[in-house]
Amino acid sequence: MTTARRIERSERSMPVLSRVRDQWSRSRPLTGVVVAGCLPLTAETGALARTLRAGGAELVLCSSNPLSTQDDVTASLREQGIAVHARRGVDRAGYYDDVRATLDALTGAGRAVLLDDGCDLISTLHQERPDLLGTGALLGASEQTGTGVLRLRQLARDGALSLPVVAVNDTPVKRVVDNRWGSGQSTVDALLRATGMLLAGRVCVVAGFGDVGRGVATRLRGLGAQVVVTEVDPVAALDATLDGFRVLPMAAAAAEAHVVVTATGGVDVVGARHLPLLRDGVVLANAGHFDVEVDVRALLAAASDREPDVRPALDEYTLADGRRVLLVAEGRVAGLAAAEGSPPAVMDLAFALQALTVRWLVGSAGTLAEGVHELPTEIDQRVAALALESLGVEVDRLSTAQATYLRSWRSGS
Amino acid sequence: MTTARRIERSERSMPVLSRVRDQWSRSRPLTGVVVAGCLPLTAETGALARTLRAGGAELVLCSSNPLSTQDDVTASLREQGIAVHARRGVDRAGYYDDVRATLDALTGAGRAVLLDDGCDLISTLHQERPDLLGTGALLGASEQTGTGVLRLRQLARDGALSLPVVAVNDTPVKRVVDNRWGSGQSTVDALLRATGMLLAGRVCVVAGFGDVGRGVATRLRGLGAQVVVTEVDPVAALDATLDGFRVLPMAAAAAEAHVVVTATGGVDVVGARHLPLLRDGVVLANAGHFDVEVDVRALLAAASDREPDVRPALDEYTLADGRRVLLVAEGRVAGLAAAEGSPPAVMDLAFALQALTVRWLVGSAGTLAEGVHELPTEIDQRVAALALESLGVEVDRLSTAQATYLRSWRSGS
Amino acid sequence: MTTARRIERSERSMPVLSRVRDQWSRSRPLTGVVVAGCLPLTAETGALARTLRAGGAELVLCSSNPLSTQDDVTASLREQGIAVHARRGVDRAGYYDDVRATLDALTGAGRAVLLDDGCDLISTLHQERPDLLGTGALLGASEQTGTGVLRLRQLARDGALSLPVVAVNDTPVKRVVDNRWGSGQSTVDALLRATGMLLAGRVCVVAGFGDVGRGVATRLRGLGAQVVVTEVDPVAALDATLDGFRVLPMAAAAAEAHVVVTATGGVDVVGARHLPLLRDGVVLANAGHFDVEVDVRALLAAASDREPDVRPALDEYTLADGRRVLLVAEGRVAGLAAAEGSPPAVMDLAFALQALTVRWLVGSAGTLAEGVHELPTEIDQRVAALALESLGVEVDRLSTAQATYLRSWRSGS
Amino acid sequence: MTTARRIERSERSMPVLSRVRDQWSRSRPLTGVVVAGCLPLTAETGALARTLRAGGAELVLCSSNPLSTQDDVTASLREQGIAVHARRGVDRAGYYDDVRATLDALTGAGRAVLLDDGCDLISTLHQERPDLLGTGALLGASEQTGTGVLRLRQLARDGALSLPVVAVNDTPVKRVVDNRWGSGQSTVDALLRATGMLLAGRVCVVAGFGDVGRGVATRLRGLGAQVVVTEVDPVAALDATLDGFRVLPMAAAAAEAHVVVTATGGVDVVGARHLPLLRDGVVLANAGHFDVEVDVRALLAAASDREPDVRPALDEYTLADGRRVLLVAEGRVAGLAAAEGSPPAVMDLAFALQALTVRWLVGSAGTLAEGVHELPTEIDQRVAALALESLGVEVDRLSTAQATYLRSWRSGS
Repeated sequence: MTTARRIERSERSMPVLSRVRDQWSRSRPLTGVVVAGCLPLTAETGALARTLRAGGAELVLCSSNPLSTQDDVTASLREQGIAVHARRGVDRAGYYDDVRATLDALTGAGRAVLLDDGCDLISTLHQERPDLLGTGALLGASEQTGTGVLRLRQLARDGALSLPVVAVNDTPVKRVVDNRWGSGQSTVDALLRATGMLLAGRVCVVAGFGDVGRGVATRLRGLGAQVVVTEVDPVAALDATLDGFRVLPMAAAAAEAHVVVTATGGVDVVGARHLPLLRDGVVLANAGHFDVEVDVRALLAAASDREPDVRPALDEYTLADGRRVLLVAEGRVAGLAAAEGSPPAVMDLAFALQALTVRWLVGSAGTLAEGVHELPTEIDQRVAALALESLGVEVDRLSTAQATYLRSWRSGS
Repeated sequence: MTTARRIERSERSMPVLSRVRDQWSRSRPLTGVVVAGCLPLTAETGALARTLRAGGAELVLCSSNPLSTQDDVTASLREQGIAVHARRGVDRAGYYDDVRATLDALTGAGRAVLLDDGCDLISTLHQERPDLLGTGALLGASEQTGTGVLRLRQLARDGALSLPVVAVNDTPVKRVVDNRWGSGQSTVDALLRATGMLLAGRVCVVAGFGDVGRGVATRLRGLGAQVVVTEVDPVAALDATLDGFRVLPMAAAAAEAHVVVTATGGVDVVGARHLPLLRDGVVLANAGHFDVEVDVRALLAAASDREPDVRPALDEYTLADGRRVLLVAEGRVAGLAAAEGSPPAVMDLAFALQALTVRWLVGSAGTLAEGVHELPTEIDQRVAALALESLGVEVDRLSTAQATYLRSWRSGS
Repeated sequence: MTTARRIERSERSMPVLSRVRDQWSRSRPLTGVVVAGCLPLTAETGALARTLRAGGAELVLCSSNPLSTQDDVTASLREQGIAVHARRGVDRAGYYDDVRATLDALTGAGRAVLLDDGCDLISTLHQERPDLLGTGALLGASEQTGTGVLRLRQLARDGALSLPVVAVNDTPVKRVVDNRWGSGQSTVDALLRATGMLLAGRVCVVAGFGDVGRGVATRLRGLGAQVVVTEVDPVAALDATLDGFRVLPMAAAAAEAHVVVTATGGVDVVGARHLPLLRDGVVLANAGHFDVEVDVRALLAAASDREPDVRPALDEYTLADGRRVLLVAEGRVAGLAAAEGSPPAVMDLAFALQALTVRWLVGSAGTLAEGVHELPTEIDQRVAALALESLGVEVDRLSTAQATYLRSWRSGS
Repeated sequence: MTTARRIERSERSMPVLSRVRDQWSRSRPLTGVVVAGCLPLTAETGALARTLRAGGAELVLCSSNPLSTQDDVTASLREQGIAVHARRGVDRAGYYDDVRATLDALTGAGRAVLLDDGCDLISTLHQERPDLLGTGALLGASEQTGTGVLRLRQLARDGALSLPVVAVNDTPVKRVVDNRWGSGQSTVDALLRATGMLLAGRVCVVAGFGDVGRGVATRLRGLGAQVVVTEVDPVAALDATLDGFRVLPMAAAAAEAHVVVTATGGVDVVGARHLPLLRDGVVLANAGHFDVEVDVRALLAAASDREPDVRPALDEYTLADGRRVLLVAEGRVAGLAAAEGSPPAVMDLAFALQALTVRWLVGSAGTLAEGVHELPTEIDQRVAALALESLGVEVDRLSTAQATYLRSWRSGS
């Protein structure tokens, strides 16, 4: 199948975004706006790009994850006249060159909006291109990952955030659909493809019980695994406990694990101190945004042997005492690197939220303060309603009397 | 067992609150404060009352639910010198007399804090005793139910809320522990006691997928029921759908239901328009705060016969065409009226949150704006940590390096 | 409600048995047959008795569990002319007096069939009334519990079983409906009523992963507990492991347990050796047939204090070091003694199987060998089909071509 | 990785079979025995072959599924001196040529045992090579699939089965590990790889609630799907209903389905009559042994267009009215054809059962009647115990007193 055909097929799997595109190709609400995006460059992103173009925007893109970049997709986007700075598998320096090239496109541009996935674009902007801030041309940005929002909030706390950014990641729809169930499914999919192991009956440790961790833990339980959760936050740990999960400190969990999946947004979750505890044949995988949750360097340092690709996206490290440790996708986000990332239906909603956010930022030009903004509830509800429609699910409507009751504080007794 | 013994036993089931009481009996942080509460008057509330007293507070109480009032508990509280205005089973007029009498105790009192459960105390205060507001003596209030918070937000929106109120209901701990799992368990417990039916294989319809509805739906599924959810909010409906629940409009759901549980916070969820659709022998129960979700008057009007108490807390209505409808606890909140309400471990956390909120309101006197406030995160985390300790669950701690990483927005790549 | 009304109401909850009764009141297939039964004497049993009577049988009954005997039911049965030898709460001697009196009714009777629930009737028959065996008048028996079947198979292995007995317990319908989901629900119901505790997040240990143990474990998991299974059979242990349960030896499990439920059919599952390991406040309950799975004598011997009925059906034992152990229903089968036993819908199917078995034994008179027989598949399928009908569930039918395919061993390739 | 390395790696994933091989390389219990097998020829089968060889057997193999044959594995087996008649992707005629060639190796051989997977080897033997039967040299056979056992029982019922065959498929370990959880996981794995779709919230119809169907239904539910079951057997349908599944006739289910998975062992489960009912974009997959459950010819006849491989192992049929139907792996068993078949841990147990069955047939030479035999319980328990050991799970042992109690029919009261 040709790449163009593949993008077209993706669009058929994205009914919500398609609906937006159809409307925008008439109303053209993004005419004269440059959208600079740092996103995973997959067929689905191609559909988002086409939607923004249909709305009138000019586009410049780089990849938020060089390992997931599909070179045929970037070629196809370029053919459609979209500037793309990305190649599959570039190193760290090449990655930042692409980010910088994307920001360069904003020099002297008119109204512009950023789309970010992990905060690298916004972070580089603030560190290297302060000249682009404060001209009024940059209307705002949208960030779609939890890790990115965490970084943005730090930036804001340090007083260093100089434009309005919408935390798309934090909306209920994004959190439930993408972070929880999208990541949950793609992570178990990655484990199945990379290891081929029967998950039923295995002790699977999930580090972190945020949205992603909860999704992964729930899906692993759904496949018959005996799931253990580790946490640092007592509220999340209590939540996991009451959901029936066994909660342990990592040192205790690591000793029992057949599989460990990290999903904390943090660093060094499985590190040198845990290596002596692991069972022979343990599988390590990461579902967090960055490849720092499993300390791969510590693993390499402790290993007497490393055999790459014993299966696709699976490397085997042999420790000095003969125990073997299997690492999925070099510790990069497993669902993207060892499976196919979020399913089209998930990207459909995430990208519909992004598209409507771009439009909302354009429509709110000049009225938004610097800082992290929540997505307006109306956008969330609109996207959810379209998603239900595409699944064939109907909901009730409040009668006037019911709505009045809910609005009245005098009610009840 | 004597009532005093029963309250003492409740306290043993409430390790978190007990810990707070032990500390307060030394530090006495509520000395000179009047706490007026409108709460379910059960043995567990007795433990909260003793904690507040140990902290130095003077107490006056009425019941937020006359059907759940335990007269021996009120007697025991009175013996301990606490003013209690409540009798089991009083009618609506008597109920409001008790609420008013509770407010009367604030006339001329010094610093005071309100504890509310459904907003009736705060609502009556604003409607009938505006004189108590604005003197500065009323430091604030705490509201622990979702329905109450909904009413408060309306009050605030109307510009009519004249004191700071903490929405205890909205904290993660309260939502997960009490609303979701506490109500979930007590509602299925009520169904088992009231009907004795095998839930496995039955079509159980849950109206509303808020915290309570989600808890009820999850527990019914856990007992083998085939659960259908109805919703008016597309975001909640999408959430339920992706959690594997079948979502239908009520008209379609009612026709298949063996059981319907309402948990919307709204009114007339099962009403006259649904009665012609119901199966013979259907069970109706309400898990929402007020007894208005099942339209009992419509049911009575349509019935040719009503046999009360065919089992404890179960009335049987026979419709004109011979179909029978079984109503749990007259449509009042089933978990309280047909079972024992939230388990002690749940009340432990809810009341520990309430107690620490009272202290926080006292400590924040003069600094809080009128309006609805969130509970400070620290209180939530402290209560969760104590709860985990009581369950014997350990969590990890961030290392300095990990904490630094999470705080840094430059991190990641 | 009167007892007669209660029995009538039970019958309305037992649509399958009612259907059988309607047919039999015309065909009278049990005319001239004495049915002697040792069964739990509840309202549901009343419905079985009425069905057998409608079929023409003469009835004599004793109770298989004195604690669950409902004296008003026995009175009502007597009023209908049924001989009943049972009183609630009789001691062991009185219990066996009743069993013997029931067997006495067979002296000199014509054709007779036994209904047993735990094998006490059949066992006493063989030990004390060998004169009744071998006359040809005793056509056979039906045993409905797993424990009873276990005992029967031993009896057969010892060459001591002198009549044909149908193991109703072993049919798929009985195992799934009654043993698994009926006992599963009634056991958690008993835990909720007896303890009032929140099960979510608790470590609940289930000893034994037979049908009952699986049902209890699944239901506890469905209520949010963290379930641990103990087993002695590797096949059952592997089954539990692959179903996602943590499997541990009892010594390790007891040390973590908030709740222990025994369901093994064996003896001394929680015994003196485990008492030093238990957590303060642990709850012990038994779901097996006999009250020997928790060693109550050992508990009493180790206790410095015993407070009965701290809640209904819950005794508290205080050990020498101050730890408390809570025992449900004195170690008797919790679902019967602390809740209401199997729900009517379960008894409906179990009793329909029993009734059809009685008829099958009568119809097969003289053709069956001594020993344990399986229930004919046709009876199982007929009862299942009636049950689906009563739930409103439709199934497919094989087309002729499909049926032919399934019958052909040449098919497939 | 080389093929030899891959087979060696498979053996490391098969600890139970490896244990058997270690013992047999000393005891050589199969010396002088020919084992003729019709099996899926994957790396795992290589490990079984090596185990039988280590036991002293001479081997001749063909493939039970040409689509899953791995040509490098067959080459590697040949290098080890094993006769292999199989090529990936041969047509029906070539397939039977291979089966016949395998049987030819038995001409004039000494003692021999057959291993079958679907009954084609045994069926062809009876139809085409009656000369090999009745010489006494053929000691017996082992059949590992449910479909094969079904065919064998028909053969036996027709009086046409002329050797003892062990129904390995029917043992608890095989049923739970392979049919339920192995097939359950590999089927959802196949759906994820072939379609990439988000399963959460989708209506997934599973036809058949035998072991495989139950496994598939449970795993789909575990991934968040809303599962509907269809059945023709009322007992299985009742089982599914009480497990919380919605049970519908296929005509009703097909109209709601996003996905249909067949697992009946029958034929024409989704056929021409259902095509007008299907939603646009529906996915059809088969988990049963033969590719006759979805009527592919009817689909092709009704389609105006067919686009093969729109994704790996996924063909898209466009019906006359524009609706699209996506068929996984041409209707062949999806877990094998679109994923990797049963995981190594599953094959480990299945093959250990097969190996021990071969030995048992050799040891029982001359003592077994023609017909279908159950696997001896001891083999099942031994394999389960080894499997638990490899997972690190410990179980309890009965004390002498406990074992005595269980053996005594006098016990209990």
